[in-house]
Amino acid sequence: MPAGQQQNHPQVPTYPPPESEDEESWVWSQIKAEARRDAESEPALASYLYATILSHPSLARSLSFHLANKLCSSTLLSTLLYDLFLGSLSAQPPVRAAAVADLLAVRHRDPACSSFSHCLLNYKGFLAVQAHRVAHLLWLQQRRPLALALQSRVADVFAVDIHPAARLGRGLLLDHATGVVIGETAVVGNNVSILHHVTLGGTGKAVGDRHPKIGDGVLIGAGATILGNVRIGEGAKIGAGSVVLIDVPPRTTAVGNPARLVGGKEKPARHEDVPGESMDHTSFISEWSDYTI
Amino acid sequence: MPAGQQQNHPQVPTYPPPESEDEESWVWSQIKAEARRDAESEPALASYLYATILSHPSLARSLSFHLANKLCSSTLLSTLLYDLFLGSLSAQPPVRAAAVADLLAVRHRDPACSSFSHCLLNYKGFLAVQAHRVAHLLWLQQRRPLALALQSRVADVFAVDIHPAARLGRGLLLDHATGVVIGETAVVGNNVSILHHVTLGGTGKAVGDRHPKIGDGVLIGAGATILGNVRIGEGAKIGAGSVVLIDVPPRTTAVGNPARLVGGKEKPARHEDVPGESMDHTSFISEWSDYTI
Amino acid sequence: MPAGQQQNHPQVPTYPPPESEDEESWVWSQIKAEARRDAESEPALASYLYATILSHPSLARSLSFHLANKLCSSTLLSTLLYDLFLGSLSAQPPVRAAAVADLLAVRHRDPACSSFSHCLLNYKGFLAVQAHRVAHLLWLQQRRPLALALQSRVADVFAVDIHPAARLGRGLLLDHATGVVIGETAVVGNNVSILHHVTLGGTGKAVGDRHPKIGDGVLIGAGATILGNVRIGEGAKIGAGSVVLIDVPPRTTAVGNPARLVGGKEKPARHEDVPGESMDHTSFISEWSDYTI
Amino acid sequence: MPAGQQQNHPQVPTYPPPESEDEESWVWSQIKAEARRDAESEPALASYLYATILSHPSLARSLSFHLANKLCSSTLLSTLLYDLFLGSLSAQPPVRAAAVADLLAVRHRDPACSSFSHCLLNYKGFLAVQAHRVAHLLWLQQRRPLALALQSRVADVFAVDIHPAARLGRGLLLDHATGVVIGETAVVGNNVSILHHVTLGGTGKAVGDRHPKIGDGVLIGAGATILGNVRIGEGAKIGAGSVVLIDVPPRTTAVGNPARLVGGKEKPARHEDVPGESMDHTSFISEWSDYTI
Amino acid sequence: MPAGQQQNHPQVPTYPPPESEDEESWVWSQIKAEARRDAESEPALASYLYATILSHPSLARSLSFHLANKLCSSTLLSTLLYDLFLGSLSAQPPVRAAAVADLLAVRHRDPACSSFSHCLLNYKGFLAVQAHRVAHLLWLQQRRPLALALQSRVADVFAVDIHPAARLGRGLLLDHATGVVIGETAVVGNNVSILHHVTLGGTGKAVGDRHPKIGDGVLIGAGATILGNVRIGEGAKIGAGSVVLIDVPPRTTAVGNPARLVGGKEKPARHEDVPGESMDHTSFISEWSDYTI
Amino acid sequence: MPAGQQQNHPQVPTYPPPESEDEESWVWSQIKAEARRDAESEPALASYLYATILSHPSLARSLSFHLANKLCSSTLLSTLLYDLFLGSLSAQPPVRAAAVADLLAVRHRDPACSSFSHCLLNYKGFLAVQAHRVAHLLWLQQRRPLALALQSRVADVFAVDIHPAARLGRGLLLDHATGVVIGETAVVGNNVSILHHVTLGGTGKAVGDRHPKIGDGVLIGAGATILGNVRIGEGAKIGAGSVVLIDVPPRTTAVGNPARLVGGKEKPARHEDVPGESMDHTSFISEWSDYTI
Repeated sequence: MPAGQQQNHPQVPTYPPPESEDEESWVWSQIKAEARRDAESEPALASYLYATILSHPSLARSLSFHLANKLCSSTLLSTLLYDLFLGSLSAQPPVRAAAVADLLAVRHRDPACSSFSHCLLNYKGFLAVQAHRVAHLLWLQQRRPLALALQSRVADVFAVDIHPAARLGRGLLLDHATGVVIGETAVVGNNVSILHHVTLGGTGKAVGDRHPKIGDGVLIGAGATILGNVRIGEGAKIGAGSVVLIDVPPRTTAVGNPARLVGGKEKPARHEDVPGESMDHTSFISEWSDYTI
Repeated sequence: MPAGQQQNHPQVPTYPPPESEDEESWVWSQIKAEARRDAESEPALASYLYATILSHPSLARSLSFHLANKLCSSTLLSTLLYDLFLGSLSAQPPVRAAAVADLLAVRHRDPACSSFSHCLLNYKGFLAVQAHRVAHLLWLQQRRPLALALQSRVADVFAVDIHPAARLGRGLLLDHATGVVIGETAVVGNNVSILHHVTLGGTGKAVGDRHPKIGDGVLIGAGATILGNVRIGEGAKIGAGSVVLIDVPPRTTAVGNPARLVGGKEKPARHEDVPGESMDHTSFISEWSDYTI
Repeated sequence: MPAGQQQNHPQVPTYPPPESEDEESWVWSQIKAEARRDAESEPALASYLYATILSHPSLARSLSFHLANKLCSSTLLSTLLYDLFLGSLSAQPPVRAAAVADLLAVRHRDPACSSFSHCLLNYKGFLAVQAHRVAHLLWLQQRRPLALALQSRVADVFAVDIHPAARLGRGLLLDHATGVVIGETAVVGNNVSILHHVTLGGTGKAVGDRHPKIGDGVLIGAGATILGNVRIGEGAKIGAGSVVLIDVPPRTTAVGNPARLVGGKEKPARHEDVPGESMDHTSFISEWSDYTI
Repeated sequence: MPAGQQQNHPQVPTYPPPESEDEESWVWSQIKAEARRDAESEPALASYLYATILSHPSLARSLSFHLANKLCSSTLLSTLLYDLFLGSLSAQPPVRAAAVADLLAVRHRDPACSSFSHCLLNYKGFLAVQAHRVAHLLWLQQRRPLALALQSRVADVFAVDIHPAARLGRGLLLDHATGVVIGETAVVGNNVSILHHVTLGGTGKAVGDRHPKIGDGVLIGAGATILGNVRIGEGAKIGAGSVVLIDVPPRTTAVGNPARLVGGKEKPARHEDVPGESMDHTSFISEWSDYTI
Repeated sequence: MPAGQQQNHPQVPTYPPPESEDEESWVWSQIKAEARRDAESEPALASYLYATILSHPSLARSLSFHLANKLCSSTLLSTLLYDLFLGSLSAQPPVRAAAVADLLAVRHRDPACSSFSHCLLNYKGFLAVQAHRVAHLLWLQQRRPLALALQSRVADVFAVDIHPAARLGRGLLLDHATGVVIGETAVVGNNVSILHHVTLGGTGKAVGDRHPKIGDGVLIGAGATILGNVRIGEGAKIGAGSVVLIDVPPRTTAVGNPARLVGGKEKPARHEDVPGESMDHTSFISEWSDYTI
Repeated sequence: MPAGQQQNHPQVPTYPPPESEDEESWVWSQIKAEARRDAESEPALASYLYATILSHPSLARSLSFHLANKLCSSTLLSTLLYDLFLGSLSAQPPVRAAAVADLLAVRHRDPACSSFSHCLLNYKGFLAVQAHRVAHLLWLQQRRPLALALQSRVADVFAVDIHPAARLGRGLLLDHATGVVIGETAVVGNNVSILHHVTLGGTGKAVGDRHPKIGDGVLIGAGATILGNVRIGEGAKIGAGSVVLIDVPPRTTAVGNPARLVGGKEKPARHEDVPGESMDHTSFISEWSDYTI
């Protein structure tokens, strides 16, 4: 495109935000700028971008609209859900702040995510988590049948099943997200990254506290199954396809079925980075001395 | 709530049912009482509860309505599906009885399930199985294209893929259910519990009888893959994430990829409980002598 | 059925096609014949069969209609998607040819698939792949926001998540398909068969070329996870539930978590068949000397 | 079409029915034959014809389906309406018989109506009247809020507003139908023909019996307004655009605003035909001695 | 019903409201009581009544929900319309007050209206007028394209076509309403009653002020056509089917095509009541000396 | 708006078009410019404007999309209708030219129409006529059941009932349009204006040619009813509410019920203008010597 035409094009401000600005406003202004740019270059998508983003005065309204239209059904109408989401997001700044932290996390960690609006519109993991945050509020307000109905819609539409009682931190990335199951008494810390098909499940034996506790900065690879009231220490890494039934110490890596620590139980290899943020899925392989095919 | 107010509240009868009563009537009366209580306490959900439960004179109509509205599409209208489900459920008491047995199983086994109506409305595993039961009838009546269309809708909407020819027992719990695949010649006994992402798959080699046979009372953990015309003996337990390609004897536990018996092939540890009912996912761990991280 | 009645019944031409005929026309005529037969025998499905198949003059229109109605939402209308699919399929004969090759592959390889129309209408893996082919065209045309919106709809509706930049060959079978994830820089050859829950994922470490390269004729079993820019040689077989982080040589079988070669690294057992076509999932078991339960 | 091909074409039996046959069965068999012929000659309409007619085993089910899908809304679902219509039509043979009489009347009287299926599918007057018959039953059963909700849907969808308490005879033709208003205490006899924009309204002064009583065989021209508890004698004719506020004797013609008898009050011209059946709108003109422009 | 059960039944407070109460609250509490009574007696309608009335905390929300779901289309989503209506009704107490005045007017004047909820839910004239009030606000705010889009939806759904620039008073009854057309520069006073098919049209000759001005308390009968910038004096009555092209003095009655004053131009019969409130359509007939048939 | 800001605003080119340009291109460019201006000033409407106008490359596609989404139902899908409309409009330049002539006519004659896009999007008379033009083509192609189904949808959605066999000229304005009925053998010339509630009806007596023939440039006022195979001469004017049963000579005015010529049969007042274009509804009043109230 010739330089002269660029001036007419919507400008997307550069990332990251200046320190002085409010994060929510900044992310929202980014999202609008991205959507404006995309609407201009792709008329076939412009209607969608106006409906979901550009017609809304705030992130809370845009997100409420988008979730309501994704999750509605013939018996749970979009206007009812819109009211519900908007009411919760408006009244609860921490829920909005968590959504913003999630948007920043996805953009930062996922190389396939090239814009905030892409995440807001298209990441079913992101959308499932935001719907969960509202369901969790309803759960805490003793509006349990409604919270469970919301969980059910998310499970149908996104194939992500998070019990409304589960407590999730901020800066969460659910990448791809299909098949993620998080049980009633699970707790997930901040800045955790969870790939698809991950289960934070119960032991099945008992009522009460029976699901995993995931520390801050943990990375859980695709298809990993963590069962029972076990503790995954902060910054730990769980390899793809692992089955974890026992606690994992902080900043260590567990792999395999049943999972074992890389480096062994006695001298586990401790890493310094925060895998939930660096998203390093596979570097442990070189440390897994005998692993060649 | 003060005692005085309780009298105005809809009463949910206590569980379990008195022996003298017909199970279907009793469960249906429970479901209506629960829905009435929830409609009263949560006006935002009342419309949904009346549409799905309280406006219907029977469990068969309620279930037919709910399935029809969940599974309909722009090319398979809800009225057509409603007719189909209601016709089958009305004409086939065993299909209704199996649905009731499934409701009792879920309520009994899943600590996260606090009411029958929660299961009826929200458990996609329960709904997928009931739709399958109707598809299976159609299959037996040589109405195969319709049975396959129903399978496809269930696979799209619930991400549960059960071939209409598969034979499933009663008292089945499909917990979370996303990703469950059950092949054409598979057979599942009574009182079986199957977690999400479980595959009862073929060998791929041949036509004919090529899928697993699951005995009564079996528990299959999340993500387990059982392939080929193998026999999982009654009361056996398959650990999460296991890959099973060979028969598993009754009341033993198979874990790992490839799966091996806990206690070894020669002296496998035989358990006395019925894991499909007790839902004990993880107790074998203590018996797995070397399993610590 | 008495011989006399057969003359009134629509005839489905025999398989395989005569060599002299154009494959697309032949498959399309088969599909119409099957649909006509099924519409006649099952009035409840006839409306659906006319809407999706029998009212259309070509496979391209039928497929565009069906995808548009499956993937549309309240904010992405069916007419827009129909235009988009039909435009791409009309302008790009190779995309249509790939769809035909996929139909032939499914019919040939999956014993549960008894007709082309069953695949066209009901196989979510088939439909997800065709939608991907159009999304990939859009990606190459720099219409990336639209391509990503399409990916998102496919991920919601079919629980299949294929990045629009991924390059897929012809004759592809995605059996059951729920939970399949294929990353941005993945490449999949021709005549590959991929079962459900399979991940062709990134390492998470880096931008750039970071996803698997799958050779022609490969078979990837259910739940297998292949991570990183690794090469799965042509005709290789990846066992169900395997976790593969390193290259696999051609015509060898890798199983387990972490995956190892059957027969060992030094003398891997090389097979002669093309497992992506033969779909032999389990024959390696006999070669796995110590595998009994 | 060559004679040889005719044998493969669906045959539509000739009209009128043989005396020996049941009228409902005969009309229904005609409708199916017509729909089959049209589905064959017009593939674009075949899906619609199968959904509305050819997939149904009876006129009652076809009509219930069609009305339910026409009248449903986001808050009154099609399955609920289908149940309601089918329940009433199944339980009340006279309602079905009236529908059949209406079909015969339309086919007989309206030269633009070339088939029964055309009337069943496309005549909003016919459909509005059948929905009214069910609303009237509900009214008599003291289910008044539901009856009024149905009236409202008919008024929205067809722009025909018939109070559910109004009593309508059989063999009724509402031609074009837009804008017809029939008030609470109106009574309409058998074999009446009513054109569009006709009002059978109240005086507005009072509660109680305040709407017109229309005798058998009356013809009411387009835009005629009849107000108050007046009696239109059997076989009378009301000219288009007339405003009638006083009784009209049998077999006379009233025209004008305010309406007067053709031939004058003293010696009105009495006709011998039944205008509600002959549909002669304009022959009175020649008798209107001074009417030229 | 036995007296003892009555105590458990929802009580609908008696009409009219006590003077001490706020009218909007009182009407809203009536509506909720009526809906509760109807939901209890008619389970088939309960879902609808909860969705439209009982789940809402205020008349403004209930009305916004109902209008949004009635007027939405595939390109104007219900959530957008809900936002629009709720925003206007919340910010503009006079618009809410006018709606309340209209509800009271309908209940008071129309003998067929037995409850406020019947009017709120089912009277398309009432709903069209409330949608117009919001469109009129948008028009005044220079949001003309949106106001015109709203007019168009009302014209499609209710067959009532009111230009958003028209100014309407309070206490308006549009009975039956189909076909009402009110032009751009029309003004309608308070406590006016307008029957269906009434036109307040332009002369077609000119731009500028070209539509009728209707005084307070006027009654306009069904099908009356009033054209041009003429003045219908307060308390006047226009007979059904009249065509009025010239001013009508206050408290007189015009009838006929072209309309003339009852009693003649020189000594018109002046009435004392307010016909817009008394709804007396036909009493002028006795005064119309020569009118017999 | 300050002059400086205007430069950033989309420019709507001035009316009328330069002589040198193709009319269809010019009108389409106007429509796009208007929609762009409105989308920019009204974000709440932008999604709608992009979906209906701005995402389309031609008037034919925009109109086909808009009609398909307006007229679709649960049994006649939007994609089918879109195909049908687009096919006809693409193949038949005269149909497109007639639509353009209608757009110019509405803009020219209706002072309430301030833009072409307002007419295209919101005028149900315009949309009904365009749908009729396609139904008429289908009728001529012997695709009568489909043509009648389309007529029925237009009658339901717009309350405009035009038989597909009726022949309509170009430059047609159907203002407000609700309730217009045009019968099977009616013919309407060019540059005709027809107000709402107008009937061009049959005599009811006979089959065959039985509906009015309307000459070029005729104006038919609101609620006029013209019945039988009568001829309304070119440039004639029919007063609102008139009932016409006999031929009307060219350039004369008929009014009343039954209609008579202004000026009398012997010396009717002939006017020089073309009322179908000038839209002068009421000027005859002054010539109607005795008309005062």
